[in-house]
Amino acid sequence: MLRTHTCGELNLDHTGITVTLSGWIQRSRDLGGMTFIDLRDRYGITQLVFNMETNAVLCESARRLGREFVISVTGTVAERSNKNLKIPTGEIEIIVNRLEVLNSSKIPPFTIEDNTDGGDELRMKYRYLDLRRNPVRDNLLLRHRMAIETRNYMNNVGFIEVETPVLIKSTPEGARDFVVPSRMNEGQFYALPQSPQTFKQLLMVAGFDKYFQIVKCFRDEDLRADRQPEFTQIDCEMSFVTQDDILSTFEGLTKYLFQTVKGVDIEALPRMTFADAMKYYGNDKPDIRFGMTFVEITDLVKGKDFKVFDDASLVAGINAAGCASFTRKQLDALTDFVKRPQLGAGGLIYVRYNEDGTLKSSVDKFYSEEELKKWAEVFGAKPGDLMLILAGDAVKTRKALSELRLEMGNLLGLRNPEVFAPLWVVDFPLLEWDDETQRYYAMHHPFTSPKPEDIPLLDSDPGKVRANAYDLVINGVEIGGGSIRIHNKDLQKKMFTILGFSDEDAQAQFGFLMNAFEYGAPPHGGIAFGFDRMCSLFGGSDSIRDFIAFPKNNAGCDVMIDAPAPIKQEQLDELKLVINIQDQRE
Amino acid sequence: MLRTHTCGELNLDHTGITVTLSGWIQRSRDLGGMTFIDLRDRYGITQLVFNMETNAVLCESARRLGREFVISVTGTVAERSNKNLKIPTGEIEIIVNRLEVLNSSKIPPFTIEDNTDGGDELRMKYRYLDLRRNPVRDNLLLRHRMAIETRNYMNNVGFIEVETPVLIKSTPEGARDFVVPSRMNEGQFYALPQSPQTFKQLLMVAGFDKYFQIVKCFRDEDLRADRQPEFTQIDCEMSFVTQDDILSTFEGLTKYLFQTVKGVDIEALPRMTFADAMKYYGNDKPDIRFGMTFVEITDLVKGKDFKVFDDASLVAGINAAGCASFTRKQLDALTDFVKRPQLGAGGLIYVRYNEDGTLKSSVDKFYSEEELKKWAEVFGAKPGDLMLILAGDAVKTRKALSELRLEMGNLLGLRNPEVFAPLWVVDFPLLEWDDETQRYYAMHHPFTSPKPEDIPLLDSDPGKVRANAYDLVINGVEIGGGSIRIHNKDLQKKMFTILGFSDEDAQAQFGFLMNAFEYGAPPHGGIAFGFDRMCSLFGGSDSIRDFIAFPKNNAGCDVMIDAPAPIKQEQLDELKLVINIQDQRE
Repeated sequence: MLRTHTCGELNLDHTGITVTLSGWIQRSRDLGGMTFIDLRDRYGITQLVFNMETNAVLCESARRLGREFVISVTGTVAERSNKNLKIPTGEIEIIVNRLEVLNSSKIPPFTIEDNTDGGDELRMKYRYLDLRRNPVRDNLLLRHRMAIETRNYMNNVGFIEVETPVLIKSTPEGARDFVVPSRMNEGQFYALPQSPQTFKQLLMVAGFDKYFQIVKCFRDEDLRADRQPEFTQIDCEMSFVTQDDILSTFEGLTKYLFQTVKGVDIEALPRMTFADAMKYYGNDKPDIRFGMTFVEITDLVKGKDFKVFDDASLVAGINAAGCASFTRKQLDALTDFVKRPQLGAGGLIYVRYNEDGTLKSSVDKFYSEEELKKWAEVFGAKPGDLMLILAGDAVKTRKALSELRLEMGNLLGLRNPEVFAPLWVVDFPLLEWDDETQRYYAMHHPFTSPKPEDIPLLDSDPGKVRANAYDLVINGVEIGGGSIRIHNKDLQKKMFTILGFSDEDAQAQFGFLMNAFEYGAPPHGGIAFGFDRMCSLFGGSDSIRDFIAFPKNNAGCDVMIDAPAPIKQEQLDELKLVINIQDQRE
Repeated sequence: MLRTHTCGELNLDHTGITVTLSGWIQRSRDLGGMTFIDLRDRYGITQLVFNMETNAVLCESARRLGREFVISVTGTVAERSNKNLKIPTGEIEIIVNRLEVLNSSKIPPFTIEDNTDGGDELRMKYRYLDLRRNPVRDNLLLRHRMAIETRNYMNNVGFIEVETPVLIKSTPEGARDFVVPSRMNEGQFYALPQSPQTFKQLLMVAGFDKYFQIVKCFRDEDLRADRQPEFTQIDCEMSFVTQDDILSTFEGLTKYLFQTVKGVDIEALPRMTFADAMKYYGNDKPDIRFGMTFVEITDLVKGKDFKVFDDASLVAGINAAGCASFTRKQLDALTDFVKRPQLGAGGLIYVRYNEDGTLKSSVDKFYSEEELKKWAEVFGAKPGDLMLILAGDAVKTRKALSELRLEMGNLLGLRNPEVFAPLWVVDFPLLEWDDETQRYYAMHHPFTSPKPEDIPLLDSDPGKVRANAYDLVINGVEIGGGSIRIHNKDLQKKMFTILGFSDEDAQAQFGFLMNAFEYGAPPHGGIAFGFDRMCSLFGGSDSIRDFIAFPKNNAGCDVMIDAPAPIKQEQLDELKLVINIQDQRE
């Protein structure tokens, strides 16, 4: 028996009993006559006491133990004289009478503390030590809790979890696939799924009615800080539903998770059209924890010889309440912010609505106070407020103003990570035009259904067609997205044609799905949530890596196990593959 | 609103209310004045009625609908005159007043009935139609239930589900890996995990204490009927435990699953040593639903000039109670059974213990009735019983006798798939000697700990070392297996040496694990269950394929989506790979 209790459960009720604990040495303090050791396991920390007077040999052994040694001790639970009420076990200690060293430890390359001195790379190489730190472990405990609660909710409302295959077929639409050479089928490859999209649709054709899966997906993309080559989705699909049925089902899941995991009650989720999100937030994932929505004044400001406004296709701004007192320096910083190459605004126009009712702007040369007053009215500004205005090309201006709005939210402390403001963004366009390749791409994916009333536009003006597609956005982050799917073979075929597929290509790649549609496919739709991102949002962090047990770095490498790595020649031979790096470089 | 209710929930309590149902047409019966349609969804079947007299147009439309059409109907719930008490909805029907065809269907290539006329290949190609059949869907519902219950049990006893990576590193020990070329790291490969073994051990080093995961694993092996290239494990690991702690934890899970999923109460699981399993059942996965354990009579029978026995290193048999009346033909069939090339026994010796107390054997020439009586005593045989005896090389004889025992169990109906007899087989040998490669292989895997008392034998007689390894066996099927792991770097290094690794190879492949052991690795151990096999056992089937939504065939192909498949040249180029089939064939 290596332990009778964990290091997190003993308290005054246990006083006097004999216990055996096992764990790691968090720290030890040698006070001459006494040695104290904090023993740590997943469940907490318990103080051990060794006494030089009563057991010198044992105490001497204890003194020789280093940090992160693994020990097992037996002793008696006693009330502490010097209590630590911050931890549940802080009122007791163990008077040790048996000590066994289960394993020693070299000195860790960084401290195993909440705030460690280890850099990112070192912590990744020794991830098993990094995972010992409370904040990292707590992230993974949160993730476990989220998964359990998600599954229980989904099960309770009648969804079946079905495992879809990992070894599937490569399809060129979408991101780049990871491929897996098949030894038994020479020269052929499996692909790892970017999502179980077609399989979940087939499950609907199969009459499964309500499917979900928490599932690993794969994308061979160049990685950014918040991207991983393998990631996890909560993947869902339902039959005989309209968009409303789906939104209310997953509004239920969202509220349930906030309630059970965070203890936060969420009101009904607002729904905002894509058009409104772009118009009022310049962004299809608006952070609605705060207002400062866009005000357009294009028509109001033209014809006063201010070339910047006269040439602009959009003049729009936000009203920062109570910010009239911003200093010149602060305004310069904001101007620099919007002029960064990523945003590329020409400059920032401001109008101060002073407390005394006067108005002062950076364009006083062109606009009278009377005119500025009219602007203030449109902005809904009050004395003490600051209006920030950008002008130029509509798309670029919206993008820059969106970033400026978020920056103002940051500066004013309006983006508290413990406040959660979810919403649905709906009515996304079906297609996006790409100038470079001169073709339409599916904004969501090729299986998304156009709104029935917009189907006639597919021939006349495809870019105008709205989709039955929706995103769940929380605090400015896209957490999930989905759509009602096409369930009719002819419409699906037409969609592939619009996306530039030849009939042969469409049949070769998605023939199995279109064939399935001919055997009684029900109306269906679904959604998928980015589980890593969802966990990081719930955990109040921006980084998904902190919520993945063994993440990869930006080069797609696991530096702990040293993967990827070369394989043996006989493995390549069996797969009939030759590596041809030389050739490509010549 | 596409439905107000499902096809499985309406009964007499709903009489008179207006409902909307959606589903598939299971069958329709046209009785002249009336047309009846059975509407099916995941939840059940509801009878629809169309009346020529009250609504001829609607009734005409209904008559034109074919099998598997998808429709939505609105109507009134009415009591049936001709009740079907076999189904929950059999007392009511829907008098339809609105009919909408949501999708048509071609005639399915096989009937969507419990017993279908479709062959295996056709059903695989149209798996989405096969999945509509009740028995197939029920298998996947069972699987879902098993997963949910497993997770809840594990969560309740303190285990954390942690997702381990799918893109890892290839290791040549064990089965063949599937590999994934890395585009970002030219010429390098990830491998898909055969199990998360090293990661779960690192989680123990990380102090996670209790880990589990229901996880996909991958093996590129030549497939048999019951093997799949991707399969699912319930993977578990615990720290600060002895073998007893693990067995009792997972005995708990086993009992819980039988209780909740099958309504079957399982007594305490017996534990049998590997040595006893081989001695009494000739098999390390004994089916203990019935007795007929082996009786060895080698010493008793020698020296009577019967060469077969005199030359044998083992003479052993089983006593088939009540089988003295087996006919000559039956005995010949059993003889043929053991003489098949797979078993290769030279012949079968039988001794009939007749009801009248006389004994009659196939070796009467060599043994007197007095001598046969002594055998009967050792066998514990009674009048009416039949003793079946094999002789020869010990290993081969045990194997053949084991198969004969199972065959007798089949013949006598002692292997009821609805009776469950789980047990633990313990004390497996650590190593297996392979004559061909002239080296030892790990019987479980290289991380398995020898029994502490057997460690001295590692140097003197490695083949004799027993491991702290155990299997969960149910009804003659290995459902799970695990071990206490090595947590000491030096012992792990020694183990790799015994397995023929050079120090460099061991360090290159498993250095990260051995390094981790130097930073305070706790004693730990675990187990993994074959989830597909477990589901098929609970479902009373021998085939795991029936319990996988989209299985692959024996060539590793998904014939529905047509995977694996060739990929585009640009994909190969990006990966710096050349396919070299020609070359190999010359």
